[in-house]
Amino acid sequence: MEVNIPQVEKKRVVIIGAGFAGLALAQKLAKTGAFQIVLFDKNNYHQFQPLLYQVAMAGLEPSAIAFPLRKALQRSADLYIRLAEVLKVDPAAREVHTSLGSCGYDYLVLANGAVTNFFGNAEIERFCIPMKSVSEALYLRNRILADFEQAVSESDPEEQKALMNIIVVGGGATGVEVAGALAEMKRYVLPKDYPELRTGEIEVLLLEGGDRLLSGMSAVASRKALEFLQKMGVKVIFGAVVTQFDGARLRLNDGTQLHCRKVIWAAGVTGSPLEGLPPETIVRGKRLRVNRFSQVQGFDNIFAIGDSAFMEEEKYLQGHPQLAQAAIQQARHLARNLERTRRGVELLPFSYKDLGAMATIGRNRAVVDLPRFRFQGLLAWFVWLFVHLFQILGVKNRVFVFFNWVWNYVTYDQPLRLIIRPKDNRP
Amino acid sequence: MEVNIPQVEKKRVVIIGAGFAGLALAQKLAKTGAFQIVLFDKNNYHQFQPLLYQVAMAGLEPSAIAFPLRKALQRSADLYIRLAEVLKVDPAAREVHTSLGSCGYDYLVLANGAVTNFFGNAEIERFCIPMKSVSEALYLRNRILADFEQAVSESDPEEQKALMNIIVVGGGATGVEVAGALAEMKRYVLPKDYPELRTGEIEVLLLEGGDRLLSGMSAVASRKALEFLQKMGVKVIFGAVVTQFDGARLRLNDGTQLHCRKVIWAAGVTGSPLEGLPPETIVRGKRLRVNRFSQVQGFDNIFAIGDSAFMEEEKYLQGHPQLAQAAIQQARHLARNLERTRRGVELLPFSYKDLGAMATIGRNRAVVDLPRFRFQGLLAWFVWLFVHLFQILGVKNRVFVFFNWVWNYVTYDQPLRLIIRPKDNRP
Repeated sequence: MEVNIPQVEKKRVVIIGAGFAGLALAQKLAKTGAFQIVLFDKNNYHQFQPLLYQVAMAGLEPSAIAFPLRKALQRSADLYIRLAEVLKVDPAAREVHTSLGSCGYDYLVLANGAVTNFFGNAEIERFCIPMKSVSEALYLRNRILADFEQAVSESDPEEQKALMNIIVVGGGATGVEVAGALAEMKRYVLPKDYPELRTGEIEVLLLEGGDRLLSGMSAVASRKALEFLQKMGVKVIFGAVVTQFDGARLRLNDGTQLHCRKVIWAAGVTGSPLEGLPPETIVRGKRLRVNRFSQVQGFDNIFAIGDSAFMEEEKYLQGHPQLAQAAIQQARHLARNLERTRRGVELLPFSYKDLGAMATIGRNRAVVDLPRFRFQGLLAWFVWLFVHLFQILGVKNRVFVFFNWVWNYVTYDQPLRLIIRPKDNRP
Repeated sequence: MEVNIPQVEKKRVVIIGAGFAGLALAQKLAKTGAFQIVLFDKNNYHQFQPLLYQVAMAGLEPSAIAFPLRKALQRSADLYIRLAEVLKVDPAAREVHTSLGSCGYDYLVLANGAVTNFFGNAEIERFCIPMKSVSEALYLRNRILADFEQAVSESDPEEQKALMNIIVVGGGATGVEVAGALAEMKRYVLPKDYPELRTGEIEVLLLEGGDRLLSGMSAVASRKALEFLQKMGVKVIFGAVVTQFDGARLRLNDGTQLHCRKVIWAAGVTGSPLEGLPPETIVRGKRLRVNRFSQVQGFDNIFAIGDSAFMEEEKYLQGHPQLAQAAIQQARHLARNLERTRRGVELLPFSYKDLGAMATIGRNRAVVDLPRFRFQGLLAWFVWLFVHLFQILGVKNRVFVFFNWVWNYVTYDQPLRLIIRPKDNRP
């Protein structure tokens, strides 16, 4: 069966994934009107991943950081959005196989990002809670709240503590931000909501395998982030590698056992290359090796951009950082190159422009590395807020996030503490 | 097993349900500090039911009309919230049985409201979509969006139409409001989102068993509501009773068959009395017969308030209307009476103060019946907005709903078209 898309004269660009890379490419290409564009995604929305942790922490609604694809791409001629899972590429036949059927392409762009890396440990995958999508963040929120409700009616004090404690695995930006937000929830929100519980005894533990937090950032940022977290009551353990977790007991590589119900897994990501690509194209972290034109090794009409791509540049021998910025820059560049291809003009090589990195730890606390400056604390926090607010898609979402932030800041509250699940009574 | 609640000197009031009635009672009683209060609900939030349909229509977030119970009741001494399902009452032992265990009471207040009435038709219950809770509204939203996505990749035109058409059963306030909102979605939102589909051909059908809409309101309100809906392109069929629906084909009592994937069931509600109460207490619509002190017939320490109660008054021989107002008035009155009981003072009989009824049909269109005035159209619409905004719990929710309304009104948009489901990867 073929996916239901009209055949036209224009060349067809099939884009897989509507993350930062895929959406930026679709928007840019649609403006030229020179191609027929088919965009595949599993969801009907684009998600702003940097703020996922605030959804999990009941500070933001999913809708504030998710944006309907059809709205983002309204009034784009010759653009077809299809909600489907892409299963396989067939480069010889120039088509992809999806859950809706097959779909031919002239140009194929793989922008399907990265997935949570469980390092092949099925037990960890089964019991730990990842946080790579709005759906997962919402699940985590529901879990935290449901566990507290269970703790209230639990009479065994040991089990009660296990329901309240939270372990965060991974000291990257996500882990640091979640741990900080949990520490604030513990301090400002939980005592008011659960006067029956000894919320002061809740332990928030951050486990990091290496010897510093935010290893992608500067040493001073790492040091400051640690200092901030410790001040907020987060216990940080370095050199801690999780080897087992069965839903109740977590075991570290040094034999330590921890009793805890909830483990948030933010230990890293890995590519998830589609079936059908030659094995030699899959390199470090399961990313796809591309040249400076984003062409997947060995192909001139298959491209990879964003987290799924591994492009070597002089300064980036390990590939570009897996950040929104790199994805967006590559997408925009590829749009220009596709247009050049159409006009028969020579392609331009991509160069990454490093705009820096940042992470927030809590109220008034963030760390910012710019290419020329590094700073931490209140100013960094304002910069973090401003930059993230500015990047959110859609005026309404921006206004809502801003209003939410002001409200939560002033009231010391995370007001969305609702366990809501869509209810389906159908067979 | 007993529910984990401390034993104290004070008399214990157990309240079942945190809807308008249960929450109002808990808040009022907690202020006196004279009782130990135990509040059972299945959810950790109170929901503002009158705006459910806006959640389903992607105009409001669930969080805008749901309010965390623990926040609503923060700083209430001797108040215990338990998330549990109450299964049974044992009046002889003075206790209720819940999913968390048993719980004794001195006074028991049944405020568990009403449930969707499927009139005993299991097939209809299985395939139609009810809209009595935030979870159900969210499911309906996801369903509408998912069906449109499926329609886009459907090549059979007949099936495509079946995926797009929507039938609403029941011409009460919910049915009228949903049908109106769907008509607006069809007109303003869908053509922009789905240029590939012939959205102009979508049929919105409203089926009513009787001979007029809004049968609880005045004749002029019914007439105007019908006129508004018809102007907006909704097809209204009177005397239509659904006898069968198998998920694809709907059959009416006159033999008519309609081909449709989605049927929204807003045909009425019924009480859901707990097991353990004597059968003679259960009357019309499975409500519980109570006297003017809200005491369930035959008991002096078991009360029913809100939709679940059937109280006869001279002017209300069919019981009070099942509206938020009646629930709140009964709750406040009962709080006063419980306090009088404690002080050994004579109880006061309840009288319902009719504040009127209203329904909105769409942009600038509503119908309002006040005890002395009746009006329709733009003014009615403003009154509707104002009254509902004013009743929503919490300043933040009020501000958010207001901002959403202004935004949606100005942009002709229902921007929350996101299919988001919490994702649980656990066993």
